[in-house]
Amino acid sequence: MSRTALVIGIGAGDPSHVTLGAVDAMRAADALFVLEKATASSLTAMRQALVDRHAPGVRVVLVPDPPRDRSAEHGASQPDGAYAANVSSWHDARAAALAAAIVEHVPEGGSAGFLVWGDPSLYDSTLRVLDRVSAVIPLAPKVIPGITSVQALTAAHAILLNRVGEPIHITTGRRLHEDDGRNTVVMLDADCTFRETARPDDHVYWGAYLGTPDEILLDGAVGEVGELIARTRAEAREKHGWIMDVYLLRRP
Amino acid sequence: MSRTALVIGIGAGDPSHVTLGAVDAMRAADALFVLEKATASSLTAMRQALVDRHAPGVRVVLVPDPPRDRSAEHGASQPDGAYAANVSSWHDARAAALAAAIVEHVPEGGSAGFLVWGDPSLYDSTLRVLDRVSAVIPLAPKVIPGITSVQALTAAHAILLNRVGEPIHITTGRRLHEDDGRNTVVMLDADCTFRETARPDDHVYWGAYLGTPDEILLDGAVGEVGELIARTRAEAREKHGWIMDVYLLRRP
Repeated sequence: MSRTALVIGIGAGDPSHVTLGAVDAMRAADALFVLEKATASSLTAMRQALVDRHAPGVRVVLVPDPPRDRSAEHGASQPDGAYAANVSSWHDARAAALAAAIVEHVPEGGSAGFLVWGDPSLYDSTLRVLDRVSAVIPLAPKVIPGITSVQALTAAHAILLNRVGEPIHITTGRRLHEDDGRNTVVMLDADCTFRETARPDDHVYWGAYLGTPDEILLDGAVGEVGELIARTRAEAREKHGWIMDVYLLRRP
Repeated sequence: MSRTALVIGIGAGDPSHVTLGAVDAMRAADALFVLEKATASSLTAMRQALVDRHAPGVRVVLVPDPPRDRSAEHGASQPDGAYAANVSSWHDARAAALAAAIVEHVPEGGSAGFLVWGDPSLYDSTLRVLDRVSAVIPLAPKVIPGITSVQALTAAHAILLNRVGEPIHITTGRRLHEDDGRNTVVMLDADCTFRETARPDDHVYWGAYLGTPDEILLDGAVGEVGELIARTRAEAREKHGWIMDVYLLRRP
């Protein structure tokens, strides 16, 4: 009997982002697994608070993240192949650790829950890792969508992603130089790359720790608020020890 | 005293998509307003069922949608300016009807709730309409994000939007010819435009009535399933009298 992997989007940090389906799935799981990032302990505490509130009887199993070589990820000059290979070997190590933990804590025919910040479809590795786990033990994925930091950003600013009829791009800091910047969401950008790529009159809507008590929002013309955002980001990262942020660029 | 407009994303159709924050907001509203589309009565019934379940005492006010000239919208040859002007005058008519309804049903200092399918940030006109309403009566928006049909699509197929490190594009059928098709989500496409723009070996993940009991999912190479999707879509639209669908194109 195959086990089910419940891949549960739990929102971007605001407890009110959690869906009724996520609550049901958390309760239905035989155990909940989290791939631990040692640097973000307040994220771990927020996640544990969600479990305590919605599924207090369900065991949470922390699976330590294997070490990952991030040194090469922020250079735009790195070939895509090397980047993908680096990420890929890291996922294999994650998969091995997870398969062992699942066999230990979930009976055959049971459900292993995975709590994912944001939505499992957007720049998240859980589904890829589980695909690798399913090469070791039979595992059928069931995805419960969750509110993303992108949606938390637009909600906090009370804006749309798009203007009437316009397309939307979602990209990473390292690919931003390829983009036309008309309605561009940028994730995973430690370098505030928009300061190099955007025009001074492009509007930037920025948010960090979205949906949490530490939420910071800034917006304005890049030429006016660009450096303020970079400085605010650096100071907040120093203060909290970690940061999650996202921004939207819009060309006038 | 200004009124608050609670702009509440209620998900793509699956009742389990509703967030805890949406439930709270529905209950907090003095009245809930819906801009009625006469063609989609089963959508209206689904929305009413959510209110009955989560906020049974709150009045639902149907504000009839002004008629909209859709005849010109599906031609790619129409200039963007004409398209935007057409949409704009329709929003003015909506705003006038809404301001009157809000004054009638919500006391000063109170909250008017707006139930939005999907998320208020994505190809939805509610925030734009409320911006126009706020020129008539003071109105402060507060947005509660919701699960989109895009997330329902990726969850149902258990896929990611992006491959490792790749950007994502979200666009409409009428702009699809501008796109490179690498990871492209297409909304509002009555014409299955991908049959003209995609390569035969591009993979298409399609879904209609996502999250509802009528959900239909199809995926495969465009050359193999493209006509099947177009035929299935036409038959479903005929049977139900309306259709909501979305798809993801991915280049191998």
